[in-house]
Amino acid sequence: MPGRYPSKLLEDAVEAIGSLPGVGRKSALRLALHLLRQPGEHVHRFTEAINHLSDDVRYCRECMMIADGDVCAICADKTRDHRTVCVVESVRDVMSIEETGQYRGVYHVLGGIISPIDGIAPSDLTIRQLVERVQALGPDAEVILALSGDVEGETTAFYIYRQIAPAGVRVSTLARGLGFGDDLEYADSLTLGRALVNRQIFKP
Amino acid sequence: MPGRYPSKLLEDAVEAIGSLPGVGRKSALRLALHLLRQPGEHVHRFTEAINHLSDDVRYCRECMMIADGDVCAICADKTRDHRTVCVVESVRDVMSIEETGQYRGVYHVLGGIISPIDGIAPSDLTIRQLVERVQALGPDAEVILALSGDVEGETTAFYIYRQIAPAGVRVSTLARGLGFGDDLEYADSLTLGRALVNRQIFKP
Repeated sequence: MPGRYPSKLLEDAVEAIGSLPGVGRKSALRLALHLLRQPGEHVHRFTEAINHLSDDVRYCRECMMIADGDVCAICADKTRDHRTVCVVESVRDVMSIEETGQYRGVYHVLGGIISPIDGIAPSDLTIRQLVERVQALGPDAEVILALSGDVEGETTAFYIYRQIAPAGVRVSTLARGLGFGDDLEYADSLTLGRALVNRQIFKP
Repeated sequence: MPGRYPSKLLEDAVEAIGSLPGVGRKSALRLALHLLRQPGEHVHRFTEAINHLSDDVRYCRECMMIADGDVCAICADKTRDHRTVCVVESVRDVMSIEETGQYRGVYHVLGGIISPIDGIAPSDLTIRQLVERVQALGPDAEVILALSGDVEGETTAFYIYRQIAPAGVRVSTLARGLGFGDDLEYADSLTLGRALVNRQIFKP
């Protein structure tokens, strides 16, 4: 065999699948051969779902979360407390907090975390939108900074605190029932729920 | 949030990715959000490589392996021994054997293994093509049955043997024994027993 693969098509597909994070060459080959055994229409449904997500996804104009319309289902829910805004890094964090069933406020999705090493500056995140939103809410609102307990999370929390403190809102942070350095998305929902209920005033 | 996902598009993509073997819901969500962070053209290249493989893949008319043309690179190689045919379950096995650098014959890819539990009958595999090929080769050829050492592998090997034996070819099978570097104390007794029965003259 001239190359490692018997077919350029197979090689290209393995290369594409292997570019996903956490998927090695051997797994990529296994997945490519699995897809090859599926009927063509099944494979097309698979790739269409991914293209569709990439091409047509929209973001809630209130909280910047992935949404199907202008406003996400949470922001559209009138029974939720719109004066309590939980600031999170990503959609996954929203899903984790929703699973606890402990939170009835709304969210603000930053779309990342300040990280000079990864070249992510405050302007790459939705902090400006958060500041405007908080200013519009006025002083009797609450902002919960639900960020990871690592250096980037703490830095981002501190940066946001300085931006929104002038608006006079109450700023709280998750109770540190979570160990330092723990990633929010891997926390079990009981711990995460408790940390949310026992949130404390942010004192930098 | 009404469902578990903030967007139907995201849910569909997670469902599609999660249908891959060995990919759980949490990994599927992580991969979907990863793809969402990539530029659209990157995602399109990813899905096109997969569609391309599924739509345009061809199989070697000699050995039934994945190929880019009518005949695969191995069957097209005149320097290889075309009178020695190694029968394997899948393309992955061809790649594993090629990586050893120990084999200079050609292959025959069955496309699976006889498994009544999974509903795979001999007619679902390329056994008929193998029998025709062996008949055309004539009696001084060799067929190596390089199948797994489990019940399905043994069953398939026995079935194929009965089909091709009338052609008078030499039929061999992979040596079964301890792997290189295997610890004797951890070998299962069936493997150890076979290794003992099939012991070879010690040539240091």
